[in-house]
Amino acid sequence: AVHGARKMDDYGRFLALLVSALLVGFVSVVFSLVWVFHYREGLSWDGSPREFNWHPVLIITGFVFIQGIAVIVYRLPWTWKCSKLLMKFIHAGLNTIAMILAIVSMVAVFEYHNARNIPNMYSLHSWIGLTAVIFYSLQLFLGFAVFLLPFAPVPLRAALMPIHVYSGLTIFATVIATALMGITEKLIFSLKNPAYSASPPEATFVNCLGLLLVVFGALILWMASRSHWKRPPEENAKVLQPIGGTPEGTEAESTMTDGGNADKSDLRINSEAARKQNLKLDEAGQRSTM
Amino acid sequence: AVHGARKMDDYGRFLALLVSALLVGFVSVVFSLVWVFHYREGLSWDGSPREFNWHPVLIITGFVFIQGIAVIVYRLPWTWKCSKLLMKFIHAGLNTIAMILAIVSMVAVFEYHNARNIPNMYSLHSWIGLTAVIFYSLQLFLGFAVFLLPFAPVPLRAALMPIHVYSGLTIFATVIATALMGITEKLIFSLKNPAYSASPPEATFVNCLGLLLVVFGALILWMASRSHWKRPPEENAKVLQPIGGTPEGTEAESTMTDGGNADKSDLRINSEAARKQNLKLDEAGQRSTM
Repeated sequence: AVHGARKMDDYGRFLALLVSALLVGFVSVVFSLVWVFHYREGLSWDGSPREFNWHPVLIITGFVFIQGIAVIVYRLPWTWKCSKLLMKFIHAGLNTIAMILAIVSMVAVFEYHNARNIPNMYSLHSWIGLTAVIFYSLQLFLGFAVFLLPFAPVPLRAALMPIHVYSGLTIFATVIATALMGITEKLIFSLKNPAYSASPPEATFVNCLGLLLVVFGALILWMASRSHWKRPPEENAKVLQPIGGTPEGTEAESTMTDGGNADKSDLRINSEAARKQNLKLDEAGQRSTM
Repeated sequence: AVHGARKMDDYGRFLALLVSALLVGFVSVVFSLVWVFHYREGLSWDGSPREFNWHPVLIITGFVFIQGIAVIVYRLPWTWKCSKLLMKFIHAGLNTIAMILAIVSMVAVFEYHNARNIPNMYSLHSWIGLTAVIFYSLQLFLGFAVFLLPFAPVPLRAALMPIHVYSGLTIFATVIATALMGITEKLIFSLKNPAYSASPPEATFVNCLGLLLVVFGALILWMASRSHWKRPPEENAKVLQPIGGTPEGTEAESTMTDGGNADKSDLRINSEAARKQNLKLDEAGQRSTM
């Protein structure tokens, strides 16, 4: 009973963070729309500043909010009864939507620049932003080829998984950093009389949007890096456990990743062989695609 | 012998990354000096743009490079024979130096702004930068009170350690994001005729500095998040192991954090009691301060 209560506490904490992240992400999208419709010229696709405005809206909606959800989609406890394959499709699908929105949002900027004879690709924002989109596309392609298609051998999947996770989180953080640079540029360029430095309402409002993006990123990275919130290994893997074959038993690997969980060690699997097997199956995500 | 060779491979990989990070960090500092001395007015403390120039130099030297080293200082294998207490002092000392340099660099900007009647704290860069310095100071103070002073009980240390690690890495990433915003602002404000958009040599050079900062951050975060490169628990803890009492035996917790290491599972400690003890001692960093 004590253990069950602790589980529920932990579930409650996860839910509270998830709701906060969704709220902050959603408010960020709303802020980007208010920025564009209330303070700027609105949206259209005609080479005018209204075409540029698609850029912040699509980046914040797709490359920040949707990518953030894609990062933590395996952590949602009510999806643990769904097949891993389905969840991989959802993860890949959300990332594909995010990539498409990011590319469309870049096209909007290029067309706007070209219509006004503004040079492309001169700023640090553009350099890092384009690099992020290229790495993101590579990550999506490699992730699809290695983890979704059934051809890659288990050792390759196991070797690439930590790199996939690290790259994903690093690209996500870089995208937020790039968005902050973009906000800075846009406020400096578009606020004249009163200038950005005079802190007109638009400046304060969009600065708040920047803060929201940082908070969203911090929440997603916290949820993604707590390994006790990881999706447990597949059912088939559980069968292999000789001792402690409860669903909790499979949280083994997660248990010791962050220090505060020493008291959870009673959940550990005691058989070396079963653990090795579980580790391989879980980390390589092999079962569901074969 | 095979296992020894694998260990050496891993050590070689760590060294290669460390040398890369130090090189990229050092080159970033050199770039900041070239920016300030070759392209700008140099350094002085007189309210002129030369006083402002301390800002990028001190931020990149202290808040990026030195903070980055502080983040990974426990990972240096040749320090594992030093006492944990000594390493904590080095970690805290480097972070204190970084904090002082960050504060001095902010004073330089405030004095420059005040001398020229430029408003303070209007930009997203300033909002996030000041927030980062405040959180950094809090982190340093709490880290000192909880992990260095011998008063905090083990469960408190164990509960706060994952938060300390997460906050440290998140603040570090936020500082780099803030530096990128600062570079963007400074290039837009200071490049007139030719403007930033005309890509004069200074623009290209400082954009490259921005890229270097991103690469430095990515290298440090990779090294910091590979748990098999963690400092092993203290000698005293090792005594508690009934089986596998070799130095490698204590890497237990690290072994399963990232998926690629399933083959290292032969290093695991088999006694539940010894492991719990080790976990507590290692994560809470208790031994060396008592």
